[in-house]
Amino acid sequence: MNQTELLHVNFPHLRDLKPFDTAHSATPWLADIEAKHQRKLCDSVEDAVKRCGLQDGMTISFHHAFREGDRVINSVVALLAKMGFKNLTLASSSLMTCNDALIEHIESGVITRIYTSGMRGKLADAISHGLMDEPVQIHSHGGRVKLLQDGELNIDVAFLGVPCSDEFGNANGTHGKSSCGSLGYAMVDAQFARNVVLLTEEIVPFPNMPASIVQDRVDYIVQVDSVGDPAKISVGAARVTSNPRELMIARFAADVIEHSGYFKPGFSMQTGSGAAATACTRFMGEKMERSGVTARFALGGITGSLVDLHEKGLIETLLDTQCFDGQAAASLARNPNHVEISTNVYANPGSKAASCDQLDVVILSALEIDTDFNVNVITGSDGVMRGASGGHCDVAAAANLTIVVAPLLRSRIPTVVKRVTTRLTPGESIDVLVTDHGIAVNPARPEIRERLEAAGLKIVDIEALYARAISLTGEPKPIEFTDKIVGVIRYRDGSVNDTVRQVKE
Amino acid sequence: MNQTELLHVNFPHLRDLKPFDTAHSATPWLADIEAKHQRKLCDSVEDAVKRCGLQDGMTISFHHAFREGDRVINSVVALLAKMGFKNLTLASSSLMTCNDALIEHIESGVITRIYTSGMRGKLADAISHGLMDEPVQIHSHGGRVKLLQDGELNIDVAFLGVPCSDEFGNANGTHGKSSCGSLGYAMVDAQFARNVVLLTEEIVPFPNMPASIVQDRVDYIVQVDSVGDPAKISVGAARVTSNPRELMIARFAADVIEHSGYFKPGFSMQTGSGAAATACTRFMGEKMERSGVTARFALGGITGSLVDLHEKGLIETLLDTQCFDGQAAASLARNPNHVEISTNVYANPGSKAASCDQLDVVILSALEIDTDFNVNVITGSDGVMRGASGGHCDVAAAANLTIVVAPLLRSRIPTVVKRVTTRLTPGESIDVLVTDHGIAVNPARPEIRERLEAAGLKIVDIEALYARAISLTGEPKPIEFTDKIVGVIRYRDGSVNDTVRQVKE
Repeated sequence: MNQTELLHVNFPHLRDLKPFDTAHSATPWLADIEAKHQRKLCDSVEDAVKRCGLQDGMTISFHHAFREGDRVINSVVALLAKMGFKNLTLASSSLMTCNDALIEHIESGVITRIYTSGMRGKLADAISHGLMDEPVQIHSHGGRVKLLQDGELNIDVAFLGVPCSDEFGNANGTHGKSSCGSLGYAMVDAQFARNVVLLTEEIVPFPNMPASIVQDRVDYIVQVDSVGDPAKISVGAARVTSNPRELMIARFAADVIEHSGYFKPGFSMQTGSGAAATACTRFMGEKMERSGVTARFALGGITGSLVDLHEKGLIETLLDTQCFDGQAAASLARNPNHVEISTNVYANPGSKAASCDQLDVVILSALEIDTDFNVNVITGSDGVMRGASGGHCDVAAAANLTIVVAPLLRSRIPTVVKRVTTRLTPGESIDVLVTDHGIAVNPARPEIRERLEAAGLKIVDIEALYARAISLTGEPKPIEFTDKIVGVIRYRDGSVNDTVRQVKE
Repeated sequence: MNQTELLHVNFPHLRDLKPFDTAHSATPWLADIEAKHQRKLCDSVEDAVKRCGLQDGMTISFHHAFREGDRVINSVVALLAKMGFKNLTLASSSLMTCNDALIEHIESGVITRIYTSGMRGKLADAISHGLMDEPVQIHSHGGRVKLLQDGELNIDVAFLGVPCSDEFGNANGTHGKSSCGSLGYAMVDAQFARNVVLLTEEIVPFPNMPASIVQDRVDYIVQVDSVGDPAKISVGAARVTSNPRELMIARFAADVIEHSGYFKPGFSMQTGSGAAATACTRFMGEKMERSGVTARFALGGITGSLVDLHEKGLIETLLDTQCFDGQAAASLARNPNHVEISTNVYANPGSKAASCDQLDVVILSALEIDTDFNVNVITGSDGVMRGASGGHCDVAAAANLTIVVAPLLRSRIPTVVKRVTTRLTPGESIDVLVTDHGIAVNPARPEIRERLEAAGLKIVDIEALYARAISLTGEPKPIEFTDKIVGVIRYRDGSVNDTVRQVKE
């Protein structure tokens, strides 16, 4: 009787234990010096797709860190079309104007189901007009991780574009030619996907540190010419505005923060991108310098304006899920207290801890906000989808003070409405609305209203803002929809917050 | 019909989707400013144990980063004994001389099963003499993660001692009073355990960055007086030796590396702790400075000697699963290219990539090595367990050149034997043995022997070293064992490499 047999006799519960075979039985690649180094490397994306065993009906995912500069999503889906795949679920963390090319692959049945934070351009227009049989599932950034965690969304293959990786898959967005900065979205796909394929512009020597995507989460690696154009990351996100209306809103918002009761040493904030938010960050910087009040951290999408404050010592730590511009990406590479976090750590309500729960103040935008403070960030005034859920409802729910900034009118169309076309963030999560025609405070937060009034800020009821808007533009004509549901708005916990119906031609 | 009902009618596969309830339905703590910040904080370890729902028969885990200075394992097990728990499986990444106190809790049935990399002192002695009904499962560092991955080992509650954490559980071993350095073992438990409890000496403001243990892996946090004495981490690991025999072995080993064919620009190495290994690191430094050959990385347990080479620019990156001394811990805090890695990234054969697979040269120790190059690092010449599997078989299997360093005799007992008492690492993984009486090369690596001989090194057959040992000490008396199995030696892939039987009194 050998040792293992003896063991099985004496301890029957250990009978599944196998005797030792050879040192390399479980790791055959270790017997071959070439396999040792190259077992993950694929000659082409097609090769990687085959090795992943992708099949019709499966789910593929992408991240959108390159935003309008992305070159991975369209090219991989085109390849899958060419390879003859059908009925795939596309689960990109978001989709942009640059993804118009997907329309033909939806028409031909390559993509039949979509999960995304948002959509823009021709793709969004086509879907709003009934391109797909099934409605698109619109989730928030935190809610996407919840869907993965709960198993509704199962990624079979994640195709993750990175500027650089080593042969084992250690990758980051800060080194390499096409630096996109934080890989906060991709980190989650690397954690949850059954197969992870890196598309990388460069294969650098092992170990490529720091590793945002870590080698033990990566299956295959393909070198490609380009994964994205970092210059297009900040398209649409104006760095400095001289628009007097935006500057006015930004100044009001900064005043609101200052007198809200949350502007205290060690406070925290999220300001996002967009002209008014960026200007508000700058005004906050001035207030912080003047008062000596510094922030413990800023969260979320990081911009150059936040980096400026960080480098002046006004914000101690930047927690970054996404770099909104090149200055942010360069800072992530350089500043030790500019730290990359995954969207699970950022905002998933099902995470063991979401950083947004620590947030004092957040500034958010709106396409529409209604007199119950419900916010729409997805459909335009014509009912067509042209935005993204993003972290909106995540951070609104979690922050101590949620401020929405928006002009009262956009191209003579009211932003403040009786009832939002589509509800993304419930009014209960919004505390203050700042417009160029006045500031309104949610009646659920009387203490905030008191503090702002005590500081001399003029507060109006949101109904008054609505009345003001209507007086300027007249009552807008209701949008006509068909009965077909083209989009499902998922709240961060996975529940259905609203649906979007097809607009009539 | 509301929106969600309409959705269910049109898309029956979406019928599980629930309508939105309130913003805080899934996150009730967000409605309560105190709960928001304190939901993980426990008044005591007892409180944390209760909140985890620990029950008899479950599995608890610990890390051993504080080595002989650990103050968590004994105190938590004593608490669980006081709370009346029975039949627990103890899955500490390793156990040390400082864990003698566990004996009484094994005797009383609190702990009835153990998984560990090793054991020392009175505990090991008692177990070797039959203290437990069930054999201890001895695994390697990489093999432990494989057991977790394969589901043989399911951690119900991980109790992880850390010097500092914030209220969300972001923790590291580099800040705080009792800095232990890398938390490479704990990172794995945080990933796999159903419940993760941090015992921390300090609760620092959020966000505590860098986060080796990330908030989204932590359930509960307890502040305690002390988690460990960092001064005792390096107990047993001599920094500088003046022992001429050890210096001779170290010099031979450095010569072997230099002429092995692997000493090339960009090579990599693991040298571990121990007097000869540490001295060899120093000699390697001299060779590197002289020749201009620098290393891309050093791997594994990191010592001050490796830090010296790193800071001289001789080793580009340190990949660190465990800091063997205070100098290493301080370097991890300070040097951006001294990077912490988990044991999954270090050495798990089931990982999507183990860093040891990239290794050129490793220096390992041995309690015994036999004429087939099999190595024993667990049982002494009396058959009593007094060592640890560690990363031995992991790295030996993966490195391009595996060198064992050992004196031919220890206290007049041969190290080179006919047949090892217990086989931890198979001879097929060992390439070269360096002793103070000569160097032997595994016949499976004739090219290495040729290169060393070409460089003028005198190579002997391992049988000659065995004969030399026997000629000096005489044939050792065989150890007498009973039939009872007290230890099962698991190879890194989970298979049974050997068993350890109870020694006769």
